[in-house]
Amino acid sequence: MTRVERLQASLEEPLLVSNRVNVRYLVGFESSNAALVVEPDHVRLFSDFRYAELGRAVEGVEFVETKRSLYAALGELLEGRIAFEAEDLTYGRWETLSGAGVELVPRRGLVEELRAVKDDAELEAVRRAASLTSEAYARFAEERFAGRTERELAWRLDELFHELGAEAPAFETIVASGPNSARPHARPSDRKVGAGETIVVDAGVRLDGYCSDCTRTFATGSLPERLQEAYAVCLEAQLAGLEAVRAGATGVAVDGAARRLIDEAGFGEAFGHGLGHGVGLDVHEAPRLAKESGDTLAAANVVTVEPGIYLEGLGGIRIEDLVIVREDGPEITTGFTKDLVSVD
Amino acid sequence: MTRVERLQASLEEPLLVSNRVNVRYLVGFESSNAALVVEPDHVRLFSDFRYAELGRAVEGVEFVETKRSLYAALGELLEGRIAFEAEDLTYGRWETLSGAGVELVPRRGLVEELRAVKDDAELEAVRRAASLTSEAYARFAEERFAGRTERELAWRLDELFHELGAEAPAFETIVASGPNSARPHARPSDRKVGAGETIVVDAGVRLDGYCSDCTRTFATGSLPERLQEAYAVCLEAQLAGLEAVRAGATGVAVDGAARRLIDEAGFGEAFGHGLGHGVGLDVHEAPRLAKESGDTLAAANVVTVEPGIYLEGLGGIRIEDLVIVREDGPEITTGFTKDLVSVD
Repeated sequence: MTRVERLQASLEEPLLVSNRVNVRYLVGFESSNAALVVEPDHVRLFSDFRYAELGRAVEGVEFVETKRSLYAALGELLEGRIAFEAEDLTYGRWETLSGAGVELVPRRGLVEELRAVKDDAELEAVRRAASLTSEAYARFAEERFAGRTERELAWRLDELFHELGAEAPAFETIVASGPNSARPHARPSDRKVGAGETIVVDAGVRLDGYCSDCTRTFATGSLPERLQEAYAVCLEAQLAGLEAVRAGATGVAVDGAARRLIDEAGFGEAFGHGLGHGVGLDVHEAPRLAKESGDTLAAANVVTVEPGIYLEGLGGIRIEDLVIVREDGPEITTGFTKDLVSVD
Repeated sequence: MTRVERLQASLEEPLLVSNRVNVRYLVGFESSNAALVVEPDHVRLFSDFRYAELGRAVEGVEFVETKRSLYAALGELLEGRIAFEAEDLTYGRWETLSGAGVELVPRRGLVEELRAVKDDAELEAVRRAASLTSEAYARFAEERFAGRTERELAWRLDELFHELGAEAPAFETIVASGPNSARPHARPSDRKVGAGETIVVDAGVRLDGYCSDCTRTFATGSLPERLQEAYAVCLEAQLAGLEAVRAGATGVAVDGAARRLIDEAGFGEAFGHGLGHGVGLDVHEAPRLAKESGDTLAAANVVTVEPGIYLEGLGGIRIEDLVIVREDGPEITTGFTKDLVSVD
């Protein structure tokens, strides 16, 4: 079955797909101004003249060229009862369509559920993106860190990604050193890396549209004992999290497997985020591994496993692999070493 | 008056600001999970624990730390009649808040209107971003184009941006050569630049948060006569568009001033997009210069002026400046030459 056919099988009424990544996933069409209406035996793709040439080339859909105000046009073209993506459509667009007499039914996660289970071609793209990322980390580890700024280092890693053939970084590369590494969402600054510090490097690439996501924590020379201890605990927790990954495990259980070790070592307060998230066309997608997750893992999900320990003022540790969920365990796609790598 | 005070002066009821760029504009807080509630004499900033340290440091607001599900939390915390940003808030979040008893009033463009008129510091940031971009174009024009792929060239320009101190490209750099340059939304491909072609280069940088946006069309050697003619017409139209820019001019009139010349030269069908758009924290914002624009220019708006002529199968031309709107005309911030530059 095609992706569209799988979606059609799950629909109670026609679905308006407004989310652009979902449009791309379903029919391979990339545009900042497009929507799809999926009916049981018919799919229409709507976009404006700028994308008309590309739109007409999409197989299996009827392309409808609209004016630039896509939702005003849809209001005139659609009628009857239609489901829509409640977590994507803005209230303003909902109002436009409702005002034009379309009977709208809010739905959630229909396409996202399909996207969470990757097909073979998607898994292959993820593996290639992850493998490229690992190779870049290996070369990056040969570089001098001390004395260079976080921004210089982040750019250097982006250069390596480019040289190795990445389309682009999957997200803004994070290089956070010393006290900055204690912030899970630090952005690269002009701070120069010093000696005896942790450097959290969280980065990934986009390749054939698919993202990778990998974090390693490097050290410039010998670390304070508390950070050495945190590294050992974080790594142990990461391995326990990986161990728990398999089809049928809940997001809560996998998160808990890693979190328990961090809690028991007394670092519980220092691990403030969830253990992981799905990755695919988006760098954050379903399913989630977290205390409040409602998801259960299925084979061919792709998730991160990334515990962290953040010690205010001192430094932080995060270790993240990107893994493919198998019936009997994880396939780890990010092969770069998780031993603490000492850099110059 | 501060930005928040200007907003407060325009409100009929408290406003829930959900758009993250609007949040950043108003209080300087950057987060993927934040909202602001602006009341006549009080501003509350909501975000989760990951951003709590940064949030507490924001001046002039009460920071409220919420759980990760920000809108579920807001449903419990808010009450009474509150305006919201209808073009940003998703239907799903609207439903969450409505279901919790909040009386929501849809509003449009309140913060966007403020953002369209830049203050001196913003104009200075735009000038710096544009000046850096012009310098990068000057160095880029010294490079060899023929025989290199569009992707190689796009990366080279990104490198120049970085070397000159840009935070990041403002958007994915466009290098479109030969027949690809006839597509206004081409993405860099593995096509090698040949001889006697146009190469449309559309790029910009982000500096201190503000974007630049500049397009020049280069030529590898002598062009077919039709493209030479198109270049001359496009440049004439671009100059006529610039000439029409001043406070009080409508977006329709400025667009028309350029479009008329292209129409008269017989290329009307080949200019399928609007003449320009506002630029600031976002690379596309208010006001618009287009046939269907409802905007009137004001002093300290920042807009692009970018006519294009796209000849299917042959090639395309686009020439774009970023300009600051003055009472009596435009201040052009992108100084790189608009003469047809021949590259190797």
